[in-house]
Amino acid sequence: MNWNPTPYPWPDGYRAAACFTVDVDATAPWLWQHRDKIPSGIAALEHRQYGMRQGLARMVAMLDRLNIPGSFFVPGIVAKDNPDLLPGLIERGHEIGLHGFYHEIVSETSDAQFTDALETSIELFVAQTGARPAGFRSPAWEMTPHMLSELRRHGLWDSSLMGHDLPYQIDGVTELPVRWDNDDAIFFKFLGAGDRPPRSEAEICARWTHEARAQIRDGGLFMLTVHDWISGRAARVELLSDLFEPLCADETVWVTTCGEIARHHLSVGGLEVTSQTVTPINERTGHE
Amino acid sequence: MNWNPTPYPWPDGYRAAACFTVDVDATAPWLWQHRDKIPSGIAALEHRQYGMRQGLARMVAMLDRLNIPGSFFVPGIVAKDNPDLLPGLIERGHEIGLHGFYHEIVSETSDAQFTDALETSIELFVAQTGARPAGFRSPAWEMTPHMLSELRRHGLWDSSLMGHDLPYQIDGVTELPVRWDNDDAIFFKFLGAGDRPPRSEAEICARWTHEARAQIRDGGLFMLTVHDWISGRAARVELLSDLFEPLCADETVWVTTCGEIARHHLSVGGLEVTSQTVTPINERTGHE
Amino acid sequence: MNWNPTPYPWPDGYRAAACFTVDVDATAPWLWQHRDKIPSGIAALEHRQYGMRQGLARMVAMLDRLNIPGSFFVPGIVAKDNPDLLPGLIERGHEIGLHGFYHEIVSETSDAQFTDALETSIELFVAQTGARPAGFRSPAWEMTPHMLSELRRHGLWDSSLMGHDLPYQIDGVTELPVRWDNDDAIFFKFLGAGDRPPRSEAEICARWTHEARAQIRDGGLFMLTVHDWISGRAARVELLSDLFEPLCADETVWVTTCGEIARHHLSVGGLEVTSQTVTPINERTGHE
Amino acid sequence: MNWNPTPYPWPDGYRAAACFTVDVDATAPWLWQHRDKIPSGIAALEHRQYGMRQGLARMVAMLDRLNIPGSFFVPGIVAKDNPDLLPGLIERGHEIGLHGFYHEIVSETSDAQFTDALETSIELFVAQTGARPAGFRSPAWEMTPHMLSELRRHGLWDSSLMGHDLPYQIDGVTELPVRWDNDDAIFFKFLGAGDRPPRSEAEICARWTHEARAQIRDGGLFMLTVHDWISGRAARVELLSDLFEPLCADETVWVTTCGEIARHHLSVGGLEVTSQTVTPINERTGHE
Repeated sequence: MNWNPTPYPWPDGYRAAACFTVDVDATAPWLWQHRDKIPSGIAALEHRQYGMRQGLARMVAMLDRLNIPGSFFVPGIVAKDNPDLLPGLIERGHEIGLHGFYHEIVSETSDAQFTDALETSIELFVAQTGARPAGFRSPAWEMTPHMLSELRRHGLWDSSLMGHDLPYQIDGVTELPVRWDNDDAIFFKFLGAGDRPPRSEAEICARWTHEARAQIRDGGLFMLTVHDWISGRAARVELLSDLFEPLCADETVWVTTCGEIARHHLSVGGLEVTSQTVTPINERTGHE
Repeated sequence: MNWNPTPYPWPDGYRAAACFTVDVDATAPWLWQHRDKIPSGIAALEHRQYGMRQGLARMVAMLDRLNIPGSFFVPGIVAKDNPDLLPGLIERGHEIGLHGFYHEIVSETSDAQFTDALETSIELFVAQTGARPAGFRSPAWEMTPHMLSELRRHGLWDSSLMGHDLPYQIDGVTELPVRWDNDDAIFFKFLGAGDRPPRSEAEICARWTHEARAQIRDGGLFMLTVHDWISGRAARVELLSDLFEPLCADETVWVTTCGEIARHHLSVGGLEVTSQTVTPINERTGHE
Repeated sequence: MNWNPTPYPWPDGYRAAACFTVDVDATAPWLWQHRDKIPSGIAALEHRQYGMRQGLARMVAMLDRLNIPGSFFVPGIVAKDNPDLLPGLIERGHEIGLHGFYHEIVSETSDAQFTDALETSIELFVAQTGARPAGFRSPAWEMTPHMLSELRRHGLWDSSLMGHDLPYQIDGVTELPVRWDNDDAIFFKFLGAGDRPPRSEAEICARWTHEARAQIRDGGLFMLTVHDWISGRAARVELLSDLFEPLCADETVWVTTCGEIARHHLSVGGLEVTSQTVTPINERTGHE
Repeated sequence: MNWNPTPYPWPDGYRAAACFTVDVDATAPWLWQHRDKIPSGIAALEHRQYGMRQGLARMVAMLDRLNIPGSFFVPGIVAKDNPDLLPGLIERGHEIGLHGFYHEIVSETSDAQFTDALETSIELFVAQTGARPAGFRSPAWEMTPHMLSELRRHGLWDSSLMGHDLPYQIDGVTELPVRWDNDDAIFFKFLGAGDRPPRSEAEICARWTHEARAQIRDGGLFMLTVHDWISGRAARVELLSDLFEPLCADETVWVTTCGEIARHHLSVGGLEVTSQTVTPINERTGHE
């Protein structure tokens, strides 16, 4: 137990940091879900194309207006199907990162499949942009020791886990922690019967504002994650603008990309953990 | 990617549009759900008859008071069981549209059944009103290539998909996009154990007001969808009135029917998409 | 369609009515759920006994303070296990009504079982209070033609269905309509994993206040339903007091029991409906 | 029925009481859930380690700042894996209590397993702190007659049931009642798809404030329960501080540990109940 933690050493006089990140899923999770057979109904597919047709451009225009560099995690298939997406983001000063090829759900993917999707995506990013991506975010924010090992082999940072408020190292990989609470999908995603009705934008934005302020007072990292087809709607982009405008205006807050923070963290050190090898209780001897 | 979209050319100096639409489901979804066997319990059936007994008239009186022309999508069986419904709506200056015969759920309906339900409904509408309906809305907002093909064959516009904020063409059919977020059923519908408890009217109406304003600022189309037996309650009709009153007072907003917008869109052009033929991932060769 | 309904003729210059009703379920639904085998865990049973130990007395004290006569629907087993419950309620000027013997869920109960539970409960009420109860409310608000027929045979009014805002007749039985939206259980009931987390009292009470005001403006009946072990908590009783205090202070609102309204309705007439005999769609010939 | 209850005799002129309790679950429920086989995904495990890495220290610092003695219920395995946890809590003036060894879910645990987990935990607590714990809280707040019997045998008080607002005796064990409504997990816990999206901190804190005030006006006990990895986040600790600050400032409220209240209750007496032996309805003769 670290009863009295010391403040994290942010650079250049900053006392906290904030990232605006976008998981550009588009139709990739739908393709993965229906990887064996395409259903006849097209409603979900149309809905998910909203971001590429309208939502992402509106979101990017807002970031440009506030002069915020965003971090965009793009599945390989989305980059492939929209060849001007990655170049357009880079041209506007944003960061791009990896996010699987077909947004592969980890529990449904073998180690070999993960490695293949990772390498194919890297090749595609290089082909489309001329540069290797530096970071990764796992689809649905699951992670395995194999995945961490592969990220380490490729020298990639990660942004998928929730074990801290601050950057840390896990299995030698720099982790920029996310939080479900700061994700739009769990509050707004709705694709029909069975899904939970969306919450109010005003409520969630007030919640995120509250969270951001508390994180800043605490000297932490406020990491927001939104999606192209979910938060690209007009009312949501307005509220995201309202959320980040005061952060941008606060000179003590470093509003930057995941990559910039990962680079900074290498010079800082701090918490290092390993993904534990856990023995199931029922294989233990007594209460070991 | 269309990074810098141009504003939609609304007519007559308007800069945005709004539609008040009603899916007059009444007992039709219950009849479809229990199409093989009628349960002994009558609670849900009584509940669903609320609209025909009281709710719809209250809603229509409100629209008439605000001088809003509504678009009412009526399943054939509801028109048949309430023969003064369609004539009464038309007499009051509202638009009527198709909505299946028994509110057939798309995934449970064959192509032939859809065609039959569509044609039977058109005949019924003609018999009751003397005119062919011009538009269609799919039950539960699902759509297939076959359905789009049939709508095109009959020269009908559609209002069931979510791929844009503005009217667009899909497979040659004019689409007036809907949104789950602007539907009352996902927030208010409650028929007993298992359903999610209704959200507060004040919260949802504030949410819709927020959404309407953002859409208007963005030059878009605010499409609201409510149901006879859900939103015909006194408190909800009051809030719907509060929602639309400022839209009606705003001279830059075109508060009109789906049909009027569909007719306008034909002279405008704009986005044209096709319902994609997608190959399942597992039938692809490599990461094509 | 009744496009222009006339106002309901409330007595004595009142223009609307309100009822405070309590479904005194206590442990009855738990006994019914576990009618074959009692589980070893006692948490839910303890939780459900809260009303008899503390909650109901607090609620009754509040009603007495506001001088509101409440309508209490009590399963036979709850009256039997708490023999001073019915006499104590009557002594304080409240109305008591039937609510099954073991809170039998309708879909799990045969017609004969319903009749037996009804008659046994009537006998018990007579034995404990010296008078026959006049009204009935169905457990979980389900109803069948057989149940309506039995109520008519016993001359009982009913308060279980949702087909209107105002009293009506169904199969010759006077119906005092309820609404899920004005029930506490769907918002507050929580017995552990799987249940939906309770909503905020302030939100729900604001919602009910809003609903009550709209119903009153519309000349309708505001029927609230709460439960002994759910709404007997201190904060909830305070909010229920806040909800009803303005209704009691409004001289145009008739705050009374279900029984009083049922008696009045007999002299009024109004909507009469029958529980429909519906043919399943798949047994119909064409789109009849 | 106790229609006119007398006020509870709080000591020293207090008219109500409040407890801040923490169920320090950390990874224990995950270990129990996966007791046969550890999954490859590490996201939930990382998430649950947040409390031990950061959240609990932040929460304890807040309690120390407000000078509130908290009651911390710690599963044996969490104490074992974090050997400075119990000593650190005691050193800071807080109370520690038992909470199973592996957070064993009661319905999945035999009587013998419960007894074993209880005794092993007591031994561990003695070894780490030099003293026997005085109180117990059941994992997931379930309880059986066997468990109550074992607590009585060990002279432990309990804090797991919901049958009253005030301390009471059940099977001879002093019960300090909890409430789902005053638990953070049901509102905030989120570990991925399938869980319900977290509610807003501001809403829940307003709700708890409202509840605390009503309980105090009613002369009752306000028992709050939070979790290390859930409520240790910066924004939540701030709100918990806002919630308890006015309680601490109110001289009529006894803000203390469960143990202090349990000791006081022994001199007071009051409600005594027994865990009932219930006959299933279907084994009863008639409506007994």
